Amino acid sequence: MMLPVGAELTSIRSPRVKAARQLAKRAFRQRAREFLAEGPQAVSEALAAGVVTQLFVTAAAQARYASLIGLAAGQGADVHAVSGEVMTELAQTITPQGVLAVCEFIDVDLDQLTAGQPRLAVVLANVRDPGNAGTVLRTADAAGAGGVIFAGSSVDPYNSKCVRASAGSLFHLPVVTGPPVADAVRALRERGLRVLAADGGAGTTLDDLQSAGLLSQPTAWLFGNEAWGLPSDVLDLADDAVAVPIYGRAESLNLAAAAAVCLYASARAQVPSARAGGPRQT
Amino acid sequence: MMLPVGAELTSIRSPRVKAARQLAKRAFRQRAREFLAEGPQAVSEALAAGVVTQLFVTAAAQARYASLIGLAAGQGADVHAVSGEVMTELAQTITPQGVLAVCEFIDVDLDQLTAGQPRLAVVLANVRDPGNAGTVLRTADAAGAGGVIFAGSSVDPYNSKCVRASAGSLFHLPVVTGPPVADAVRALRERGLRVLAADGGAGTTLDDLQSAGLLSQPTAWLFGNEAWGLPSDVLDLADDAVAVPIYGRAESLNLAAAAAVCLYASARAQVPSARAGGPRQT
Repeated sequence: MMLPVGAELTSIRSPRVKAARQLAKRAFRQRAREFLAEGPQAVSEALAAGVVTQLFVTAAAQARYASLIGLAAGQGADVHAVSGEVMTELAQTITPQGVLAVCEFIDVDLDQLTAGQPRLAVVLANVRDPGNAGTVLRTADAAGAGGVIFAGSSVDPYNSKCVRASAGSLFHLPVVTGPPVADAVRALRERGLRVLAADGGAGTTLDDLQSAGLLSQPTAWLFGNEAWGLPSDVLDLADDAVAVPIYGRAESLNLAAAAAVCLYASARAQVPSARAGGPRQT
Repeated sequence: MMLPVGAELTSIRSPRVKAARQLAKRAFRQRAREFLAEGPQAVSEALAAGVVTQLFVTAAAQARYASLIGLAAGQGADVHAVSGEVMTELAQTITPQGVLAVCEFIDVDLDQLTAGQPRLAVVLANVRDPGNAGTVLRTADAAGAGGVIFAGSSVDPYNSKCVRASAGSLFHLPVVTGPPVADAVRALRERGLRVLAADGGAGTTLDDLQSAGLLSQPTAWLFGNEAWGLPSDVLDLADDAVAVPIYGRAESLNLAAAAAVCLYASARAQVPSARAGGPRQT
């Protein structure tokens, strides 16, 4: 089969390669409204979302990724063969997986997210570590959340480490980037979501809410910066501050672990069929 | 106050500095049975555990860490002032926090761990990423686990990234390093723990176990490698394989998030006072 791939680009100074490389920087991403997704999983999700404009594939990996190449070409994306050296330069990983896509931005605005009437949503308030943010995005997707808002000075969701940590989830659920935390909270509350701030110092614990049956209602979780948590002016925006209980001697959980515990507590409470012995609600 | 600190070491070729630097490598750690703990939180936990043999502190940070220096000297540790350059060399972090300790190994053997009759324990089966392993250790501590076993070819718990990610929890609960996975599972089962393997492909979900009330019994969780999970011969060692339910479109959770959900489900089921409306068991 003849794959729809152009001549191999072997120079990192080729204009197409240079333009794609610049997408490693936030300023260039924002100007082009494009970002990079690396590896077969992310590329395949990007193709499913229909946002791939260019595909780079190493000569060695062309046969393996023939179906991705076919899909990309069928969607009108430009497909470029590249040398291993060029891929290493583009991929920003130690062992690049041989395929990388330039994708159009897919974030939506607050109104679009809330129009989906999410019953579970996440607001990241000034979360700076891209690995943490991407992991929370993946966990939110797994827990069935209807959106994640990267609010305040949170990391860019299109940062390559965040894209990688999200393991495809960036393409699965509505993501909003950049609104002030207060705007995000207000928009969700107007849609009837109860806003819970995860705060290790809170007097109310997740167990208290679970036991009181309060987690079954539509909920937005507010998670703060990994080092300094949620400042008091942000805590004041929430309906309740909630601590994950500590049963042992750890001082706290890290952000991704705390988010997993909170989001899964909500997910389980919201899915009627998962309730022990109870009737299935319709 | 005159702090019990020797003359400042300014050369990375000083014998004491060289010896400490070598502890960045597993082979040297195993020979010396010592490891490095960096930053005030880890150092303070190491001092509480009584395992500090040497303390390095920058001249600039001496006043700030006067109480740690006093404690270390009181325990007979050697305290060395070092230049910022030497600390950067030792700490392996981009922004070292000015204080670093050489600590004696604190791992125990399987018998010592099981002698504590843990009701919740963790077996890491070939978990290779030190950040993941350290995060699971921290989460296990938070969930009240009575031990974590770094089994099979799992990362060294004394790896500096693991120590850092554990946020002090390495010093809080019994840690075993290096036994074959089968030995770890056997030892825990002999003490009456039910062994549950976390496996995204399992037919039984965590919700099923929660709903059936099966999580309140003593439990050991078996977590596999972040990339390839638990191979079938390891799955066969467990009493049950259990999947964290996926409510959305994510394919799976990452290791640290899955561990947080599983361990907190167990912790909550094991603490009678946290049960909604139920009688408190004694």
